[in-house]
Amino acid sequence: MDELSRALDRSDMSLEDEVLHAYGHDETEDLVHPPQVVVRPRTTGQVAAVMKACHTHRVPVTPIGARTGLSGGALSVHGGVGLALDRMDRIVDIDERNLQVTVEPGVITQVLQEAVAEKGLYYPPDPASRGSCTIGGNLAENSGGPRAVKYGVTRDFVLNLEVVLPDGEVIWTGANTLKNSTGYDLTRLLVGSEGTLGVITKAVLRLVPLPRENRLLLVPFDSPYKACEAVSAVFRAGITPSAMEFMERDAIDWSLRFIGDDSLSVPDEVQAHLLVEVDGNDPDALMKDCEAILEVMEAHGAGEVLFAETAAQKDKLWLLRRKVGEAVKSNSVYKEEDTVVPRYELPRLLEGVKEIGRRYGFQSVCYGHAGDGNLHVNIVKGDLSDGAWKEEVPKAIREIFELTVSLGGTLSGEHGIGLVQRPYMDIAFSQVQLDLMRRVKEAFDPLGILNPGKVLP
Amino acid sequence: MDELSRALDRSDMSLEDEVLHAYGHDETEDLVHPPQVVVRPRTTGQVAAVMKACHTHRVPVTPIGARTGLSGGALSVHGGVGLALDRMDRIVDIDERNLQVTVEPGVITQVLQEAVAEKGLYYPPDPASRGSCTIGGNLAENSGGPRAVKYGVTRDFVLNLEVVLPDGEVIWTGANTLKNSTGYDLTRLLVGSEGTLGVITKAVLRLVPLPRENRLLLVPFDSPYKACEAVSAVFRAGITPSAMEFMERDAIDWSLRFIGDDSLSVPDEVQAHLLVEVDGNDPDALMKDCEAILEVMEAHGAGEVLFAETAAQKDKLWLLRRKVGEAVKSNSVYKEEDTVVPRYELPRLLEGVKEIGRRYGFQSVCYGHAGDGNLHVNIVKGDLSDGAWKEEVPKAIREIFELTVSLGGTLSGEHGIGLVQRPYMDIAFSQVQLDLMRRVKEAFDPLGILNPGKVLP
Repeated sequence: MDELSRALDRSDMSLEDEVLHAYGHDETEDLVHPPQVVVRPRTTGQVAAVMKACHTHRVPVTPIGARTGLSGGALSVHGGVGLALDRMDRIVDIDERNLQVTVEPGVITQVLQEAVAEKGLYYPPDPASRGSCTIGGNLAENSGGPRAVKYGVTRDFVLNLEVVLPDGEVIWTGANTLKNSTGYDLTRLLVGSEGTLGVITKAVLRLVPLPRENRLLLVPFDSPYKACEAVSAVFRAGITPSAMEFMERDAIDWSLRFIGDDSLSVPDEVQAHLLVEVDGNDPDALMKDCEAILEVMEAHGAGEVLFAETAAQKDKLWLLRRKVGEAVKSNSVYKEEDTVVPRYELPRLLEGVKEIGRRYGFQSVCYGHAGDGNLHVNIVKGDLSDGAWKEEVPKAIREIFELTVSLGGTLSGEHGIGLVQRPYMDIAFSQVQLDLMRRVKEAFDPLGILNPGKVLP
Repeated sequence: MDELSRALDRSDMSLEDEVLHAYGHDETEDLVHPPQVVVRPRTTGQVAAVMKACHTHRVPVTPIGARTGLSGGALSVHGGVGLALDRMDRIVDIDERNLQVTVEPGVITQVLQEAVAEKGLYYPPDPASRGSCTIGGNLAENSGGPRAVKYGVTRDFVLNLEVVLPDGEVIWTGANTLKNSTGYDLTRLLVGSEGTLGVITKAVLRLVPLPRENRLLLVPFDSPYKACEAVSAVFRAGITPSAMEFMERDAIDWSLRFIGDDSLSVPDEVQAHLLVEVDGNDPDALMKDCEAILEVMEAHGAGEVLFAETAAQKDKLWLLRRKVGEAVKSNSVYKEEDTVVPRYELPRLLEGVKEIGRRYGFQSVCYGHAGDGNLHVNIVKGDLSDGAWKEEVPKAIREIFELTVSLGGTLSGEHGIGLVQRPYMDIAFSQVQLDLMRRVKEAFDPLGILNPGKVLP
């Protein structure tokens, strides 16, 4: 504590219960694991000083972002220091000549997107929480979002990272270049490492020109499996949409209720929707894409398509999609799984999830980034007993993950493993693979002080 | 040797001088480092058996691809076993439903591209040597090529790798999914690790729909610096070409002579060319892109643009570009550097290279993937004395790399570090960074038997 006090302003440290509690949870279920002290450094030098002190005294450090995570990665399960990056929130430089931006980790994703859009540039990764999540957390979890299907996930936009290593040394991982074959790719290894290898204190991100036009379609189906089958067919027809989202009936109903929208009436026979977007610069080319998409959708038995005419209508449809998670949360305690499979396997995954749910007696609300084969499975507690919730549901989750892996998929597409998926890592990886990952962890953090208790079982 | 003989057919091993010599060089300068034995396994199991034997007896193993490398990564500088992957050359599965392909490492890049093109699919990474290089080497060096500027480099197309670790254990690094936030990203760490961490025996690669149309423009400039300035301006105008190549005057002259083409006459005042391609599905949209590009080019003082009208004309222009490297090689001993900077810095890099050349008294022929800021600097020995070539030119190369790094760039964009760039790694990385990379290497290869003497100084 003495060393921390020397490194930081008094106002950048807290031992108050209320603050510890606030930094002790994210959006994962109802879990709370407060740190013993919260530090909120303002500079890379301060982060380095914090790490040096904790390294010397072997104190656990848990990096904390905006606490919107869905796998418990930012929970201080071993106490120690909660290292909040929320005060390092500067957009350092928007480099219009090179289409790059340098940011600190505490910048809110949407704030970054709007700042670069003013210059005609685009940073595509956009998790549902983009209005509150931060770039640091996006980097830690390798976040995706709807536009990943065309543009890629967070990892695909990272050129270079400033990282404070567990012993307090500061490095840059790469260079500010679009291509790099110089040494091991520590940049992409850090992305998605969930704060267990180093603390990211700056990121150089690639930008693309902001597409001038987009078109948005809401496509109803009388069967969720038909909807899933249509997804793969669109890509096989040579179209790459900028979003291809799936919502089963319950997802849209719950979301409509949650946001209090009664302007969209969904006919009884509709069992699922696809929300499909195309973007680009040429309106005629987009219209041709839409026609090709409609043709595929009709061939797969789609109902009457809603073509969003205005910006307001587009915003409403996107709000509906973005609010599904919160809508489910407001209804019941739930567990969210982030399964991902090769996209053609989606119908098999969805069928399997429903069958497992019937056997274990739970309802699930499924939606997600179908174009990427990424299905969010929200398991609703509803009327399940506490006993069944604690003892039986984890077995069901294990079955869901076993199915996912058997279909060529894996445990998490964009939420990370963090705390809550850690018990399932043996489904995706052999002992040899896990041991190799442990040795990589040790190469960065031989004392095991950085975000202990996460990712690796 | 006994253990290797038990693992392999007699015809898959060789101790003959001629064979050892053939597998002892690549396309890097005139370097030859033969292994003591060449093995050419046909299965993953055989690769594992070779690694197990070499691990037990602490014998160096150098993975060898098509020997088209430009950094000496496949040279057996410590003797031992030359592990050639050229007999593992099957395209295992083209998965049209999921737009993926599974290949063995010995598949020639162009063979793969043509096989998937027949199904209307596209694998974009296309090094100049695509007719002879193999996917295994592309993965090892993280190869790029002209289309990387729009589609990304090899790393961006890899979903999952089967890897034989130095102790002979076999793992898959990830899953066959477009998104993955499950554990550390060993997949992208392996790509570009130049055969020092594991032996890739299978790769699952992402494909995209084959664009139906493209347009190709050859744009002359009376100054190479003006050409470089135009490059960055095209992207700032919101266009993302599918290729944006730079050739200075000497490059095109030498290439024309090398292929014996006298149909293209280049006016005396022309000092550089840009070769610009756009691709997509909609001819009208491509025409608009071309018009926007021409506007930018004119504003930067371009001369009369050659618009390739036929497939044959396009092929000829691409041949001209692809043959520059061989043309230089046929003229003189040379060293090729693979500098990469943020693209706006290209004119500064080029000016600096020329200035350094004047001071050290050598000619350089510069060309490359300008859209990615990737400039190949071919230093021609010409009339330089052997002494100057051996003693002075490395100092000049050090100056070129120092300039590159000072511009935000790094040593290699797509050729890798291998053997010949290793002495310059201290320019790009601090001792802390290099030590961290060494610990990562040890996590995979504690005995240091796999491709020793490469990448890390």
